Amino acid sequence: MDVRALVEEKARTAKAASRNLALLSTKVKNETLLQMARGLEEKARLILEANRRDLEQARAGGSSRAFLDRLTLTDGRIEEMAAGLRQVAALADPVGEVLRMWRRPNGMEIGKVRVPIGLIAVVYEARPNVTVDTVGLCLKSGNAVILRGGSEAIESNSVITQILAKAMEKTGVPPEAVQFIDSPDREGVRILLTLDRLVDLLIPRGGEEFIRMVVQEATVPILKHDKGLCHVYVDQRAPLDMALEIAANAKVQRPGVCNAMETLLVHQDEAATFLPRLAKRLREAGVELRGCPRTQALLPGIASATEADWATEYLDLILAIKVVDDLDEALAHIARHGSGLAEAIVTSDYARARRFLQEVDAGCVFVNASTRLADGREFGMGAEMGISTSKLHARGPVGLEELTTTKFVVYGSGQLRE
Amino acid sequence: MDVRALVEEKARTAKAASRNLALLSTKVKNETLLQMARGLEEKARLILEANRRDLEQARAGGSSRAFLDRLTLTDGRIEEMAAGLRQVAALADPVGEVLRMWRRPNGMEIGKVRVPIGLIAVVYEARPNVTVDTVGLCLKSGNAVILRGGSEAIESNSVITQILAKAMEKTGVPPEAVQFIDSPDREGVRILLTLDRLVDLLIPRGGEEFIRMVVQEATVPILKHDKGLCHVYVDQRAPLDMALEIAANAKVQRPGVCNAMETLLVHQDEAATFLPRLAKRLREAGVELRGCPRTQALLPGIASATEADWATEYLDLILAIKVVDDLDEALAHIARHGSGLAEAIVTSDYARARRFLQEVDAGCVFVNASTRLADGREFGMGAEMGISTSKLHARGPVGLEELTTTKFVVYGSGQLRE
Repeated sequence: MDVRALVEEKARTAKAASRNLALLSTKVKNETLLQMARGLEEKARLILEANRRDLEQARAGGSSRAFLDRLTLTDGRIEEMAAGLRQVAALADPVGEVLRMWRRPNGMEIGKVRVPIGLIAVVYEARPNVTVDTVGLCLKSGNAVILRGGSEAIESNSVITQILAKAMEKTGVPPEAVQFIDSPDREGVRILLTLDRLVDLLIPRGGEEFIRMVVQEATVPILKHDKGLCHVYVDQRAPLDMALEIAANAKVQRPGVCNAMETLLVHQDEAATFLPRLAKRLREAGVELRGCPRTQALLPGIASATEADWATEYLDLILAIKVVDDLDEALAHIARHGSGLAEAIVTSDYARARRFLQEVDAGCVFVNASTRLADGREFGMGAEMGISTSKLHARGPVGLEELTTTKFVVYGSGQLRE
Repeated sequence: MDVRALVEEKARTAKAASRNLALLSTKVKNETLLQMARGLEEKARLILEANRRDLEQARAGGSSRAFLDRLTLTDGRIEEMAAGLRQVAALADPVGEVLRMWRRPNGMEIGKVRVPIGLIAVVYEARPNVTVDTVGLCLKSGNAVILRGGSEAIESNSVITQILAKAMEKTGVPPEAVQFIDSPDREGVRILLTLDRLVDLLIPRGGEEFIRMVVQEATVPILKHDKGLCHVYVDQRAPLDMALEIAANAKVQRPGVCNAMETLLVHQDEAATFLPRLAKRLREAGVELRGCPRTQALLPGIASATEADWATEYLDLILAIKVVDDLDEALAHIARHGSGLAEAIVTSDYARARRFLQEVDAGCVFVNASTRLADGREFGMGAEMGISTSKLHARGPVGLEELTTTKFVVYGSGQLRE
């Protein structure tokens, strides 16, 4: 069977099963999620062994540190995946929720009701935990799903998907509703992108170039996970101890992910006090610093940040630093270079906090908190399908609600259009 | 200046103005809408004269009845446009609405807030009222807009847009936020479709073939207004008097629009009683009937409905009729041929009403009411930008709320990612 026939067949099978998924009871969905969590824990050894094979392969292929970080599973990360499934089981079922209901003067009653989207395709690269999060969220939201993970995680994903399928069989959920494409070439992805009669939504997760290809070629609706070029702005008279902790957390806690800070902006009045302290702290953590001329004057010996640095998502222990005149310059820099994912200000000023919240055009805007908190679990939404930088449908962490659509149901008694 | 440079320049200008639009007070926006309504009424003669020139041109070009209907303005329709603007002014401003706000265990407070989308492009064909509805809705929702109307309505649109611009000048709203492309060729549309760095949303309104072209070529996010292939199903033991009124209304009241009925499905037990009554009523209204073999047996002399008829949006006084065995057959027919816009059942049975509401996958699902009521104004949402058949972002009538997106605003006190 050629790749096109295979992908279409899988999509058609999953789409057909999506009708059953939409009618599953909350109870059955939750039981399945709990079975899945248990399965992952019981088979943790198997998963880690498979992951070790993937990692060896990737290291031999010369993958970057950020890439290896995303690919790596540990006992802790498997626990997180299982905990994520349990958290999704504990969340309210979004399907069937009546968002509003009202009566019109002619007597008809209109309800706006949440329903599943149908068939969701997810294309991602290294992270094997995406497999688990995706299946869990799609199941709970009543959607069928077709997954295409990166070839680098193929061993890990293969073991994980077997565990998930077994859990579905146990609770009587049609396993055809979850389809995996394990063909290693890109052709399978390209075909998925144009199946607009079958796929209701495609979520691409990956690097900038990959997303650009998807935007160019897709005829199916997409929810973008663009790059995360996040800034922290340290305002005039900001609480500098807090600023130091937030900047260090945003840069160092997990540099390989999209909500890590890439550029620090600091008000000119605080630069002389703040930047040496920051440099000391970040260098201890192994961070390479690059700065604008004013930064270089304060931190002798650091490399100069070029125009390209302001536009680069390092995903690594590198930070670009710029001294700005005021909030306006910070806002302009963010408007020009920000990716619309997460932006933060550290300030003690009420009016400037308000301006930052109102004027920054991003999915998540923070006052006095780390950009790393832009995350479905941290927001209390349970596991997420990443963070959307699309403006349509869902912006910010994509949780259960974002995986549903709505329909209007109208109860009449013979109403006509006048 | 060539077309590409011109379209890009207009998009860039509108995008720059979108920041001002997002910050307009509700008061200024409402005053502008009322000024616009007054302007349309005061200049009604001018509009009708321009419209007459468009109609003459279109008639000479041999346009269809449905097309001419959509192009035609009357005093009544101008009144409707003005009333629509006033209704939008009376609606709550969606911008700034806090949809939810909650506190996390770590003390940070998260709010989900409505914000404008940014720059919206609308590409449409004949209807000049779309110009007014679009500008009104985009203004109230704080979005800049770039419009590309059909060349057939160019005279009407030109007069209308001058009136709207004058109203904006009077209230100090930057008129650059509303841009019109009056280039008659398709090239301008094709360029708009790929300006994904400037255009945040494109709404295409037009025929099936046009929408298909847009889906294929667009790299900007789109909200589809696909065809409207709507069904009315007359159930076993349905109240037949009501069914007759609903069917006549859904077919005849304005056949040239997307929420008119195209196919009637009738339960086999009611066909012999219902179809002769329906045929009499619809023939008096000038409707041509086409039927399945069982329909033909009951209505001698009518043309046979072929497979193509079930898939055709006539937008005209033509109706396809099919006798079905039961609700299951009706649901299967709708699942296969429906366009997901509006579907109706006429029934007296509680359980079957419920099944229809749950199982039909469409933006608007009606029990005992006409599909013609699938409409923003009829739903109480004010003027609409048509009816979305997309599943993402907005489904059904697209009103003010659907023209906004959200952002998460986070109020912290030093929170970090653990």
